[in-house]
Amino acid sequence: MAVTMHPIGTVRTDGAAPPRHWSVSEETGILDIAPEFARGLRDIQPGQHIVVLFHFHDSPEFTSEALVQTPPHKGVPLGVFSICSPRRPNPIGLSVLEVINVVDTHIHVKGVDMLDGTPILDIKPHITG
Amino acid sequence: MAVTMHPIGTVRTDGAAPPRHWSVSEETGILDIAPEFARGLRDIQPGQHIVVLFHFHDSPEFTSEALVQTPPHKGVPLGVFSICSPRRPNPIGLSVLEVINVVDTHIHVKGVDMLDGTPILDIKPHITG
Repeated sequence: MAVTMHPIGTVRTDGAAPPRHWSVSEETGILDIAPEFARGLRDIQPGQHIVVLFHFHDSPEFTSEALVQTPPHKGVPLGVFSICSPRRPNPIGLSVLEVINVVDTHIHVKGVDMLDGTPILDIKPHITG
Repeated sequence: MAVTMHPIGTVRTDGAAPPRHWSVSEETGILDIAPEFARGLRDIQPGQHIVVLFHFHDSPEFTSEALVQTPPHKGVPLGVFSICSPRRPNPIGLSVLEVINVVDTHIHVKGVDMLDGTPILDIKPHITG
């Protein structure tokens, strides 16, 4: 059974090579959310952290060889479900970003590790449990 | 532009009404992952926490009225991107679960808040940043 998603917006960055992971990123960027979702953004506040789910739109198609990968910064082979590689069976990315400001439907964020133009699928509150 | 996902497995629970959120759940269950992804599971260890992304397969279709919702346990209206409601533009759920054991492609977990039969889209390491 296939599940079809439609992006709610796009990540805007300066276009340089992004850091490898949000947990080591100081990069800023803007989440441009489609105006039809404006009311859904009303409780996102500066200083909060948000979970952003996005589509790894630029990653190569997944094949079974990528079930085990060696991330450059780890240097050992690891199962795909234990790493954050963009090459995964369903290419969904997850970043935890700090909200700097919200202007209309544009969320200014810090901690960006996505490519410019990345399609955004969802935004959730960051709950640490 | 549409993004199409294919589930990698299914959540198995005892079928009772699940807790409202993983952060308040002590429920156990099993993630039945399709055998073709077995090698990708090799580094998931008991005691770890994992992030599970899944499809809210049983939630009603999203309409603009659901951009602001009043979660029963909060009692105040909130924007959909600030809550964990299953009624959201792209019905992707996120739970952080504790791994109890991995038997073949069956991951026994604690903290379950999904319905029995929920399609699993991805498993990621839990990184707290």
